Amino acid sequence: MVGVSVKLELDPDRLLPADPQSRVIARDLYDAVAEMPIISPHGHVDPRLLLDDPAFADPAELFISSDHYVTRLLHAAGVDLADLGAGTSAAGDPRLIWRRFAENWHLFAGTASGYWLTHELVTLFGIDVEPGADTADAIYDTISAHLARADYRPRALFDRFGIEVLATTDDPMDDLAAHAALASDPTFRGRVLPTFRPDAYLDPEAPGFADRVTRLTEAGGTAADDFAGYLAALEARRAHFIAHGAVSADHGVREAYTADLDDADAAALFRQAVRGELDARGAREFRGAMLLRSAEMSVRDGLVMTIHPGVHRNHSTPTFERFGPDTGHDIPVTTSYTENLRPLLNRFGMERNLHLVLFTVDETSFSREIAPLAGFYPSVFIGAPWWFLDAPDAVVRFRSAVTETAGFYRGAGFIDDTRAFLSIPARHDMARRLDAGFLAHLVRTGRISQAAAVRIAVDLVDAIPRKAFKL
Amino acid sequence: MVGVSVKLELDPDRLLPADPQSRVIARDLYDAVAEMPIISPHGHVDPRLLLDDPAFADPAELFISSDHYVTRLLHAAGVDLADLGAGTSAAGDPRLIWRRFAENWHLFAGTASGYWLTHELVTLFGIDVEPGADTADAIYDTISAHLARADYRPRALFDRFGIEVLATTDDPMDDLAAHAALASDPTFRGRVLPTFRPDAYLDPEAPGFADRVTRLTEAGGTAADDFAGYLAALEARRAHFIAHGAVSADHGVREAYTADLDDADAAALFRQAVRGELDARGAREFRGAMLLRSAEMSVRDGLVMTIHPGVHRNHSTPTFERFGPDTGHDIPVTTSYTENLRPLLNRFGMERNLHLVLFTVDETSFSREIAPLAGFYPSVFIGAPWWFLDAPDAVVRFRSAVTETAGFYRGAGFIDDTRAFLSIPARHDMARRLDAGFLAHLVRTGRISQAAAVRIAVDLVDAIPRKAFKL
Amino acid sequence: MVGVSVKLELDPDRLLPADPQSRVIARDLYDAVAEMPIISPHGHVDPRLLLDDPAFADPAELFISSDHYVTRLLHAAGVDLADLGAGTSAAGDPRLIWRRFAENWHLFAGTASGYWLTHELVTLFGIDVEPGADTADAIYDTISAHLARADYRPRALFDRFGIEVLATTDDPMDDLAAHAALASDPTFRGRVLPTFRPDAYLDPEAPGFADRVTRLTEAGGTAADDFAGYLAALEARRAHFIAHGAVSADHGVREAYTADLDDADAAALFRQAVRGELDARGAREFRGAMLLRSAEMSVRDGLVMTIHPGVHRNHSTPTFERFGPDTGHDIPVTTSYTENLRPLLNRFGMERNLHLVLFTVDETSFSREIAPLAGFYPSVFIGAPWWFLDAPDAVVRFRSAVTETAGFYRGAGFIDDTRAFLSIPARHDMARRLDAGFLAHLVRTGRISQAAAVRIAVDLVDAIPRKAFKL
Repeated sequence: MVGVSVKLELDPDRLLPADPQSRVIARDLYDAVAEMPIISPHGHVDPRLLLDDPAFADPAELFISSDHYVTRLLHAAGVDLADLGAGTSAAGDPRLIWRRFAENWHLFAGTASGYWLTHELVTLFGIDVEPGADTADAIYDTISAHLARADYRPRALFDRFGIEVLATTDDPMDDLAAHAALASDPTFRGRVLPTFRPDAYLDPEAPGFADRVTRLTEAGGTAADDFAGYLAALEARRAHFIAHGAVSADHGVREAYTADLDDADAAALFRQAVRGELDARGAREFRGAMLLRSAEMSVRDGLVMTIHPGVHRNHSTPTFERFGPDTGHDIPVTTSYTENLRPLLNRFGMERNLHLVLFTVDETSFSREIAPLAGFYPSVFIGAPWWFLDAPDAVVRFRSAVTETAGFYRGAGFIDDTRAFLSIPARHDMARRLDAGFLAHLVRTGRISQAAAVRIAVDLVDAIPRKAFKL
Repeated sequence: MVGVSVKLELDPDRLLPADPQSRVIARDLYDAVAEMPIISPHGHVDPRLLLDDPAFADPAELFISSDHYVTRLLHAAGVDLADLGAGTSAAGDPRLIWRRFAENWHLFAGTASGYWLTHELVTLFGIDVEPGADTADAIYDTISAHLARADYRPRALFDRFGIEVLATTDDPMDDLAAHAALASDPTFRGRVLPTFRPDAYLDPEAPGFADRVTRLTEAGGTAADDFAGYLAALEARRAHFIAHGAVSADHGVREAYTADLDDADAAALFRQAVRGELDARGAREFRGAMLLRSAEMSVRDGLVMTIHPGVHRNHSTPTFERFGPDTGHDIPVTTSYTENLRPLLNRFGMERNLHLVLFTVDETSFSREIAPLAGFYPSVFIGAPWWFLDAPDAVVRFRSAVTETAGFYRGAGFIDDTRAFLSIPARHDMARRLDAGFLAHLVRTGRISQAAAVRIAVDLVDAIPRKAFKL
Repeated sequence: MVGVSVKLELDPDRLLPADPQSRVIARDLYDAVAEMPIISPHGHVDPRLLLDDPAFADPAELFISSDHYVTRLLHAAGVDLADLGAGTSAAGDPRLIWRRFAENWHLFAGTASGYWLTHELVTLFGIDVEPGADTADAIYDTISAHLARADYRPRALFDRFGIEVLATTDDPMDDLAAHAALASDPTFRGRVLPTFRPDAYLDPEAPGFADRVTRLTEAGGTAADDFAGYLAALEARRAHFIAHGAVSADHGVREAYTADLDDADAAALFRQAVRGELDARGAREFRGAMLLRSAEMSVRDGLVMTIHPGVHRNHSTPTFERFGPDTGHDIPVTTSYTENLRPLLNRFGMERNLHLVLFTVDETSFSREIAPLAGFYPSVFIGAPWWFLDAPDAVVRFRSAVTETAGFYRGAGFIDDTRAFLSIPARHDMARRLDAGFLAHLVRTGRISQAAAVRIAVDLVDAIPRKAFKL
């Protein structure tokens, strides 16, 4: 790998503040947390990856086809998703896919994905030149050679990454056999926890809702349109998840709307929903009622409740029809919490057993709604910057927006929220560097002491996520 | 006070820019304004504090129970408001309250309250260790000893703080006897001005609206449902306030909505309102009409009109029922001005006698609406960052958001908006440091001259608030 | 020009980062692009200025009366627009207008206009003292003397400014004779391109809509209420524009709402619109349908489509009635794209021939909607910060908000969007400095390499606008 190619390297001071005085402070703070274990309480890694421990297929599948953060930018540049093996498309020649990516490496400059990919290429595979048309094949071969090695299997990397806890995201009807097998495997010491993700069972407008409810309620032997049976079945599945180590239930709702309906009203909507007779307004009410009742269940069973609303899923209908969901066109919309969550918080906002972690992709809500809510309600925790906002500048804006109102201890730690297993260390390392820089800035401008900064830096990667996620 | 405790100290360069070059410039700018008198045209200090000049009760009442900025964060951490003496709860043992606060000092790191409290503890009471379980009692005793001294009475502190003007916030039916007594007291030289706060008399949905209107109109001898009498009574109360030194009327409305209704339509809504027969839509129209008519009164009598919309008051019903209002759960919502204020501005926007100061807790409106409005209408002034936004980073975001569109001279100076009398110097000092830093950044990046920066820094604490608030 | 006046000067490092390390990097990046030709694909310069090449009238007309960025701030300070020769008001004594401006120079400190004016006064006219009461006349005379010189005529300045492409904004019925004459003039080498701006022909609520449609359809010989004829006439005018060099159609819509109506439904709305019988809801649907059909036309004829919604035009009715449009009171409102553009993007979002450049004056949409849309749809490009946001701090916020999601290559370059011909170099120079600073910050914090930064800096002023605007 020689020639005119540009060097690829990692600045040891990357993401630390620009001015030298703050940088010196930040470096010390970062050093204090750089090697601490990773707690990943929300993400999308498949548990079977760690159960079966297969070798990763190839660089294209690993870095491109499976990562819609990456494929979407190539798509925007004119590459057909089918030529990237994205979504449900047939996997193409991985080397060709890799070349398409390498030729377009410049598109990723300044992006979060570009930052993470660089971290992975350098630290895991020793790549020292930028991807490009002339370097694509050599880089591909280098990565492939590594992937064939035993120490690049998922379990080996899990250890190398220092992951202590990894939460997956799972369908309520999942038997969680993979989690059970992992937990009982004496050769694997990590904690891999399932997460209860019931959206498709709570939204009458989700495709297949009635069928899903039928399967859910069959287990309990109640009729599909029996609301009490439906609630009991949901609680039974939550109990199953808890028995397999789950600590949280994840709600990827359209909006944070909640409604406090009595049993009769909710049951009436439910019956219409199961019969497919519910109109849009009724569907909204039912979703709102079920979000509130999910909180009620959490008060009883203790599952932490994460809510991440405000995304128009599958924005491009033609793309959804060709390639399925999670193919890069989930687009944020304006999101509000203050009014929407009020029914829920008036019922359960003071419950000690309720932990409600609020995420957003509309950063206007950080200072306006989320921090003020978390600064009063003991049940409300500020979720880390999510999705499009899980990037260096956005993380700094997030800290700046929430800290002055709610401090550091109403947060919930960092989440990587990723399917890209190999990017987990890059993402957590990014968060640690940025928090070190943010704290260093507070020290440099006389707002907190160095001693407080060290304590907070450590708590941000340990005590704070443990408390919020009950770990 | 020795041992393992962390030192508490104030960096003389606190809040100044991080890079050394800008910091040097900022230090000079700050020095030029650091000792200038404080003009506080909007706040919530009780005038009887200065009239009666009592010793402050105890550290807990002074710093905790009376400050819902502080109690809310302790509440979020799980402390019951009743255990903090908050709101209408019975005052508990102040030393126990203080200990609860001291043990949770880490929650305030990075918050605006933490910054102000540190300033007060160090500069007023000579505290040099952080509050904590081990230092709580010693700090409590030190503060208590100070509070017993004559030079820690409110009037002595008023002089020490260099307060030239202090505006209070008052009910329209207040006789303003305290203000009159202060004004005629030859031993007190400060200006303590009342502020006309008519919200509860203008909102048909405010509890007790009809009773309040009855009391208001009785003075003028008109029927409670006589709209002309109601308007005349409001104007008479405004005149009473003006006679006692008031320069402004403060409108804490739900939204900035205004409606230009003719007398017949407004009177019809008013009659329904007094009879309790107005629906939500009608109540909104009436509030909108009265906000516009309040501006009309200001055109006539010259009272500056401050508007601070966009807060869902008393978000937690259980808390409101137990502890009353102002107990830490007023939560912001999305706020807009462009369409809402148009009827008002089309009628009175060019009136020289109208000063309309716009505040927001939705910072998205700074660059989008408030600065563009103030950059055209001579009547519109940009209010300082308010409430959750009256904090270091938020103030910098505010300056950055409004200055490029509207410059510095469409602002209205800083307001502390506080009940916490002892925090007034800390808050104004904070604003002066941040403005010095913002101006220094403009100088450092070649956007304004050093000479212009000095003049603006001085004007920001003197000429600009005097003009906006007609002082 | 001596005395107590403050020096007016340009810092050679202006707008570069504050910290020395980043500044050194930024200086190199800026030097690489400082002298590159100007591509101005969207603006409001009158083509006859370059065709007739007259001397500029006087300093007041040049810098004040014709620039509503400037007159609005003087108006906000209490100056009547009639005393500034603004809008349709009679031109007054230019020297008096100039004095009013000079006396209020301090109002512009920290504003975008102040920055540009300083740039123009220093670089073009050698002014070295700040405008003020004492310097107004001398500065006026200096500028006047320059304006009389042949090398200060528009064409000479066009060459001096290094403008390669300048797009104007034109009525669809414009015969484009000025453009034709310029194109065929062998003594003028610049490219001056018309831009198709059809708003007033697509909005049934625009004053004179029916008359305008009548004139439009007459050319094609169809009835005014014949929808197919109307569409054909629009396409014919677009073809006329393309024949005269147009590369884009500009849509200054109220909102980005689009609707996918079939021919029969759209034609029915159209007939009602022409007859003045369409209600507000119908008008909205028709505008939405025509925005989508404009995209359809672009798919066929290739005109780039720029959309800049979200401005309440002519907010002050009394001002509009006295002075006409574009007099400083167009005020932004909340703007959204995700839902509004979905019908259009579902039809044409993947079309390679469609380039859709999205502008906003609601900066909340940068990270929430515009960058995510441009990060997936090949047809969507991120427009430069526009209007109130075309200022130093806002540009940095823009880059920070969009880059991490969409990178640099989904942008569309800088647009000056100006009527103020003399400000064009100042504006483009500003953008180049800020981009250099932004890139330098990424280099300093280890996010991109120096080599990548140089390439991107060059592409931002050359390849990127050329691609987005098909130049």
